[in-house]
Amino acid sequence: MTLKLGVIGAGAIGKEHIRRCTQVLQGATVVAVSDINPDSAWAAAALPGVCAEVYADGHDVIRSTDVEAVLIASWDPTHEEYTLAAIAAGKPVFCEKPLAMSAEGCRRIVDAEIEAGRRLVQVGFMRPYDEGYRALKKAIDDGAIGAPLLLRCAHRNPKVDESYTTDMAITNTLIHELDVLRWLLNDDYRSVQVRFPRSTSHTHGRLKDPQIVSFETRKGTLIDVEIFVNCQYGYDIQCEVVGETGVARLPEPSAVQMRRDASLSTAILTDWKDRFITAYDAELQAFINDVAAGRLRGPSAWDGYAASVAADACLKAQKNGGSVAIALPERPSFYAC
Amino acid sequence: MTLKLGVIGAGAIGKEHIRRCTQVLQGATVVAVSDINPDSAWAAAALPGVCAEVYADGHDVIRSTDVEAVLIASWDPTHEEYTLAAIAAGKPVFCEKPLAMSAEGCRRIVDAEIEAGRRLVQVGFMRPYDEGYRALKKAIDDGAIGAPLLLRCAHRNPKVDESYTTDMAITNTLIHELDVLRWLLNDDYRSVQVRFPRSTSHTHGRLKDPQIVSFETRKGTLIDVEIFVNCQYGYDIQCEVVGETGVARLPEPSAVQMRRDASLSTAILTDWKDRFITAYDAELQAFINDVAAGRLRGPSAWDGYAASVAADACLKAQKNGGSVAIALPERPSFYAC
Amino acid sequence: MTLKLGVIGAGAIGKEHIRRCTQVLQGATVVAVSDINPDSAWAAAALPGVCAEVYADGHDVIRSTDVEAVLIASWDPTHEEYTLAAIAAGKPVFCEKPLAMSAEGCRRIVDAEIEAGRRLVQVGFMRPYDEGYRALKKAIDDGAIGAPLLLRCAHRNPKVDESYTTDMAITNTLIHELDVLRWLLNDDYRSVQVRFPRSTSHTHGRLKDPQIVSFETRKGTLIDVEIFVNCQYGYDIQCEVVGETGVARLPEPSAVQMRRDASLSTAILTDWKDRFITAYDAELQAFINDVAAGRLRGPSAWDGYAASVAADACLKAQKNGGSVAIALPERPSFYAC
Amino acid sequence: MTLKLGVIGAGAIGKEHIRRCTQVLQGATVVAVSDINPDSAWAAAALPGVCAEVYADGHDVIRSTDVEAVLIASWDPTHEEYTLAAIAAGKPVFCEKPLAMSAEGCRRIVDAEIEAGRRLVQVGFMRPYDEGYRALKKAIDDGAIGAPLLLRCAHRNPKVDESYTTDMAITNTLIHELDVLRWLLNDDYRSVQVRFPRSTSHTHGRLKDPQIVSFETRKGTLIDVEIFVNCQYGYDIQCEVVGETGVARLPEPSAVQMRRDASLSTAILTDWKDRFITAYDAELQAFINDVAAGRLRGPSAWDGYAASVAADACLKAQKNGGSVAIALPERPSFYAC
Repeated sequence: MTLKLGVIGAGAIGKEHIRRCTQVLQGATVVAVSDINPDSAWAAAALPGVCAEVYADGHDVIRSTDVEAVLIASWDPTHEEYTLAAIAAGKPVFCEKPLAMSAEGCRRIVDAEIEAGRRLVQVGFMRPYDEGYRALKKAIDDGAIGAPLLLRCAHRNPKVDESYTTDMAITNTLIHELDVLRWLLNDDYRSVQVRFPRSTSHTHGRLKDPQIVSFETRKGTLIDVEIFVNCQYGYDIQCEVVGETGVARLPEPSAVQMRRDASLSTAILTDWKDRFITAYDAELQAFINDVAAGRLRGPSAWDGYAASVAADACLKAQKNGGSVAIALPERPSFYAC
Repeated sequence: MTLKLGVIGAGAIGKEHIRRCTQVLQGATVVAVSDINPDSAWAAAALPGVCAEVYADGHDVIRSTDVEAVLIASWDPTHEEYTLAAIAAGKPVFCEKPLAMSAEGCRRIVDAEIEAGRRLVQVGFMRPYDEGYRALKKAIDDGAIGAPLLLRCAHRNPKVDESYTTDMAITNTLIHELDVLRWLLNDDYRSVQVRFPRSTSHTHGRLKDPQIVSFETRKGTLIDVEIFVNCQYGYDIQCEVVGETGVARLPEPSAVQMRRDASLSTAILTDWKDRFITAYDAELQAFINDVAAGRLRGPSAWDGYAASVAADACLKAQKNGGSVAIALPERPSFYAC
Repeated sequence: MTLKLGVIGAGAIGKEHIRRCTQVLQGATVVAVSDINPDSAWAAAALPGVCAEVYADGHDVIRSTDVEAVLIASWDPTHEEYTLAAIAAGKPVFCEKPLAMSAEGCRRIVDAEIEAGRRLVQVGFMRPYDEGYRALKKAIDDGAIGAPLLLRCAHRNPKVDESYTTDMAITNTLIHELDVLRWLLNDDYRSVQVRFPRSTSHTHGRLKDPQIVSFETRKGTLIDVEIFVNCQYGYDIQCEVVGETGVARLPEPSAVQMRRDASLSTAILTDWKDRFITAYDAELQAFINDVAAGRLRGPSAWDGYAASVAADACLKAQKNGGSVAIALPERPSFYAC
Repeated sequence: MTLKLGVIGAGAIGKEHIRRCTQVLQGATVVAVSDINPDSAWAAAALPGVCAEVYADGHDVIRSTDVEAVLIASWDPTHEEYTLAAIAAGKPVFCEKPLAMSAEGCRRIVDAEIEAGRRLVQVGFMRPYDEGYRALKKAIDDGAIGAPLLLRCAHRNPKVDESYTTDMAITNTLIHELDVLRWLLNDDYRSVQVRFPRSTSHTHGRLKDPQIVSFETRKGTLIDVEIFVNCQYGYDIQCEVVGETGVARLPEPSAVQMRRDASLSTAILTDWKDRFITAYDAELQAFINDVAAGRLRGPSAWDGYAASVAADACLKAQKNGGSVAIALPERPSFYAC
């Protein structure tokens, strides 16, 4: 029983998802495509192996009787309305991050989903599907290092252009850590503080880079995340967990070991697209499988809401320098793991 | 256009391939299954998502008009006859190693395939599809270390049981290195010598373990492969290439880095099935894709023959202690890359 | 011309220094020893190769015409008076940390030394003599990673006993980072904040463990030092410097690489005495050589004062939770590098 | 009681030893120097801290009543005569490698030493004093990997000039492995075979480079040593021991870990002088200490002889391609560890 997917948004990400569903993953067929730009929609529908109807509007895709599940990869500000529409139509929906443009928007989706009575939403946070993060979580959950006490993480990118501003370090970059660290520790954030060292000379006036975002979780774990988007040297994701009996560190991507030019080295990735390439496949395959199994289990609308609430606090903390409380309500039993 | 596969042999490996084609890979459906044991065939046909006809005999699978391509995972001694039958039927065939029980048998398949006028055979050597080996080959082909001069490889396994004998180190274990090193270096073996150190105490009377199999290639590269099947500590594949300007080493599998109990460590695999898990998927997906594209590109019948010729020389070298010539005829242009 | 040393304090550290000067280092002879406990003094004077006079009191050692330079390894509260006495006697003095029991005490020593007109004091901070730290500093000074922006350090110890209290993490443990990081970055601290995660279960009521001490330097670099004295797993010193163009990390101590028990590992030290063993030799040899050359160049009384001022601020920060300014006056030109 | 040393040979190595004894090590003073070139002798005698008499001839140094022990760092062909003269004079002698120009020469020294009734000779093989090798040997001796079965070693050098010929790979380069591997395994060689791959293009007509020298020991361990003197990339010493239960590998020299230019790397040495720098100090200090203690324990004349016998077999094996027996007589009880 192949899941019939409708894809809203046929830009770079949307096309990638369509290619993925058509050529790589199992159990789904793209039957409908829409994009604000009709040409993009038509181009996507013409991808190898795709046999999909082009719709003028995302809402048409959601309403189509052919469509059983919806994949939202449209312009960020449209995510909330399409997700709500999919919930209203009773159709499972995979929504690329951000779930909504604000915490309130995410909350509306949460409320609608609870109202609908069953989980319908999976948010496109792929890191929980990365083999390295899964191995790290397993080590922690197996008790290999005792209770986690401190985390030091880093999200480093070679360079960004002039359009990237200080706040985007939170909304575009840190957003992935905001989700995966809650999942990794099975915990929520209580407060956050942001600190800025002297900026690198390789940045521009509207971007203070790097920065350190520091959290305290409800269980009392301290997390420091370094965000450095003009680090020059590569795309590098680090996560080290200091526990009561040991330290566990996210695996480095596997690479050929070279001895050359007086150096023993392994290559560091330079393109962000290469780092989580298999996780993107895994998160969508999980969505497809979970829809077929009748219960979604991936990052939920609540996870999207929690990340958004945390992000808002981070943005406030960027401005005011001190500690900002992260007031996330208790997780509804609806979203109990 | 989904490729309709007939699977001959529904034991552990055959069932795995059926599961793989049905649940993981794209573009193929298993439509026919046979096994020497009818119960195994029926169990395989009943796997989730499988809708296949059960045949009494592998030849019936090959002859079936439903079957477009054949996958051979039956008892080793039957590989040759089924492969020849598939060639005779003009159907692409993926044959698990060994291609045949002897070099002569492989030669018969080569001759039949050349006679048929187009490549129809892919042999189940998965290492050329392993991301680590591919990265290593790319580094070499890119000239990163200059021309390869020396290789040191190791194929280590924790333990084997009493049924594993000295010769099986060549036919069952080294056979993978015999194929992948030809591919890695784009070269052929010229001679081989086998040396035995004192045996480990963790072996039995009919197994001298470890051993070092040393090759000289036509281009003059020296290769030493250590085979150690009772190494105790893990399943560990090593490959280091010393070139004119540097050394490149096969990546270690990615793993969590732990600091615990006065030790900085990463885990080593213990189960051979875990080491090349994605390569098995990749080799079959490549077969499926290549059949669809109309030309096979994976390990060929010639590669199976070359590995078999080399294996025979290794077995001779195990016995006589000196250097044994590996007389592989020139590769027919039919098999030019 | 062998430097004639008088050693004040013949406990564990004092005896080690005496052994070092007598059996390992060049250019010095221990001619005088004193200890609050006469037996300890006599035992030290009887060490192999030692031919020293035993004095009742440290001041007698300083006054002795035989003694050309003084080494203070006595009870911490006596360091200031002996150092001042050595300065008054115009004799070079190597004073084990702490230079004094308070910043004011260190300041008195600085003033006395400036008054004396030439550098006479070297403080026993050994890390600037550690090969690993020196290599790290060289990499930074050579511009390999651009200007340092962020540091993440860790000072981890397996376990401490019930007498070790929260404040000792600053005065006994962090004191080494307080000195070496100023040297590493050629910078001073501007402010500090201390954060405590949930404590490990492997601690006691009077010790909150671990803690993170965070500094901002005058050049704007942010430094986070994790102090974890009951980490269980080993004695582990970490220092990672994130710069504008790269990241440099303190070398791991050299160790045999083992593949055993499904693990690829290197040993982590468990005894703090093993970690900087050659640095202790190097700092004393440097003192001896520098006295002979007529100008001291090692960690100065000013460095001892700066570390003490910073430590005081850290202790305050441990209590009050927010940021505490570190008001270090401008370094006198007397101490210009 | 400072050991009064006479140094024969004041070239680069001799001067280094003089500097070492004078400025770094304990317990010895250089009281006499000679060199075939008087200017070199005078220059050495004028080194800082040196107060030595210049002699015209090495034999004068040996005969001098001032001289208690002799250090030979003269032209290789003179080592044997000076060592014999020192033995005849009953004086301990540290002789730089080679002990003699032939196995027979070494044998004459062994016989003379046995005749003299006590050990007087230490050969300048420094690797047994290298901390890395010592840690490796300790791991083996502690049973960490069970009995050693296979070794893979490499001795790689960036480049050599036109005067370096194929045989020198044995006499100048491999000679160190010939000694240290006997010590590491507490074993002797039984046979050797040399294999040459295609040569690197970075060599010249009188040097086949690289080569693999393969030994079988009396205990049945197989050892493969790769010698590659124009490897281009660095000075790199590797030693991996495969045992019954695990694998132990010689430590990499400690180095700063860099993330820069899309690469995670540590530096590899380029100058051979840097690799064993502390071992040179340690071997001489051990000689000085052992002379004072009345019994030499370092690499003996027998070890020099054993290495020479093995080297002769290696040279023969370079020429004849097959296996060459290494006929080392039983070690006299005089040299029992």
